Amino acid sequence: MGEVKHLCLVRFKEGVVVEDVLKGMTDLVAQMDMVKSFEWGQDVLNQEMLTQGFTHVFSLTFASADDLTTYMGHDKHAAFAATFMAALEKVVVIDFPVVIAKPPPSA
Amino acid sequence: MGEVKHLCLVRFKEGVVVEDVLKGMTDLVAQMDMVKSFEWGQDVLNQEMLTQGFTHVFSLTFASADDLTTYMGHDKHAAFAATFMAALEKVVVIDFPVVIAKPPPSA
Repeated sequence: MGEVKHLCLVRFKEGVVVEDVLKGMTDLVAQMDMVKSFEWGQDVLNQEMLTQGFTHVFSLTFASADDLTTYMGHDKHAAFAATFMAALEKVVVIDFPVVIAKPPPSA
Repeated sequence: MGEVKHLCLVRFKEGVVVEDVLKGMTDLVAQMDMVKSFEWGQDVLNQEMLTQGFTHVFSLTFASADDLTTYMGHDKHAAFAATFMAALEKVVVIDFPVVIAKPPPSA
């Protein structure tokens, strides 16, 4: 078994301070050893037809499905998730085992 | 400037042979030097409320926004994209500069 990703695409409600949400997420992830890495980004396409209105991506990587399960079941995740979901106008969440079809060139 | 990702969440039309689409995408990406890496995955959540019906994720990584632009404008990408889009029931595409909030532990 390889890595598993927990991917969220979101659009925030109007008035939400994205920096605050990001700070909360970064603080949470820093405390959670089972989260191997965390990256995020903001869409630069600005093509509604393609983005369907989603504006941000959050991607957590875990070394195994067990680590993801432990994270999802953790009290601190549950507390953050409640706040996070309340800030969203729309969200898609997908969890998937990562298949590397073209590996990055080794450094 | 750091890496840029081109992320697609999709749901295929009924009857589409996903393996064939994947082979086409893997072949294309192998020919395109400006694609730094390519990974994909199939959702294992199976929670319609969270996945919104999306089943697969495709993620291309580029060393720069220029490389992504070159890829998007390439004839081979255009030819593949037409076939790919025709196989989809729904799709979200987001392009974003990657912000690494928690880097993976170095090997």
